[in-house]
Amino acid sequence: MAETAVNNGVNVQALLDARKALADAPQAAKFKWRASCKWENGTHSKSTVKGFHGLGEEQSHKTEFSFDADHPEIFAAEDQGITPIEYILVGLASCLTAGVASVAQNRGIQLKSVEANLEGAMDIQGILGMDSEVRNGYDDIKVTFNIDADASPEDIEALVAQSQKRSAVYDIVTNPTNVTVEVNAV
Amino acid sequence: MAETAVNNGVNVQALLDARKALADAPQAAKFKWRASCKWENGTHSKSTVKGFHGLGEEQSHKTEFSFDADHPEIFAAEDQGITPIEYILVGLASCLTAGVASVAQNRGIQLKSVEANLEGAMDIQGILGMDSEVRNGYDDIKVTFNIDADASPEDIEALVAQSQKRSAVYDIVTNPTNVTVEVNAV
Repeated sequence: MAETAVNNGVNVQALLDARKALADAPQAAKFKWRASCKWENGTHSKSTVKGFHGLGEEQSHKTEFSFDADHPEIFAAEDQGITPIEYILVGLASCLTAGVASVAQNRGIQLKSVEANLEGAMDIQGILGMDSEVRNGYDDIKVTFNIDADASPEDIEALVAQSQKRSAVYDIVTNPTNVTVEVNAV
Repeated sequence: MAETAVNNGVNVQALLDARKALADAPQAAKFKWRASCKWENGTHSKSTVKGFHGLGEEQSHKTEFSFDADHPEIFAAEDQGITPIEYILVGLASCLTAGVASVAQNRGIQLKSVEANLEGAMDIQGILGMDSEVRNGYDDIKVTFNIDADASPEDIEALVAQSQKRSAVYDIVTNPTNVTVEVNAV
């Protein structure tokens, strides 16, 4: 079997086993992901991510991860981190890339390198409240993948297509998601 | 003027001046934000963010920022970073928080502390391809703000409402955005 030699570092068997186990216990498939954000000063904030809920119980990352966000100096800010909307590109890029690796493993395709370059176009007249016809977010996001793999160009394109089809972040960006906001004055 | 004493670290005057300048040069308001992602192994990738385009020319963050993404150990991965969909929560949290600080400054409200806790609910039957009725992304995101400020609870609520109204990431999450994907086999 040619697939035996392929190793992209994804344990596809474990994922297939998980799918089987979850079919009998769909409640365990309900996850809750969390982030906590503290305002530092100006537009600078620090978010931390550690715990989440899934497989019917509380879970945790191995360590707490911390992320600074800020605005750049051209917005009269201190640039102590990337902007919030750049985090969306990081999420989209990494989600599609992890998907490419997983699908390639499942299809027995050895990857050599995968690089994704993302560019999101945004007219800041929206967030500055200058023109109500201009949206606040991205008008358009362009993703360019450069992939080196033991496969035909068509099979490589199909990897990306399948990754898009199963990507959580691609779904969030391309479709509307409900957000509820609660405010406590403390 | 009571506002003189208020300092949330946001240079609102610079933003108002920018708005004025951009009114005469709307082309300068067109920004392009970028991220570049390299696959490491398995579901682990590393994204970098440095350059962007705006105010009619190439711009750059003070330093290059780098972000690991991975899946947790319960997905048979190595947990070398947060998951891609957690980056969406980081982006949303930091965007709304920066907005609260900016709006508070503009309204002359002194902030003492701002904390946002986010929780995104997701049924992983979607990404595992178990049930086509289940979406891949979040079903729902809940944001809880705890804000201590020199203002009435109503004025504090109004800060958050205005931040939502002008937030780039809130827009991206709650509304659909077009994503174009190009694949080069190298």
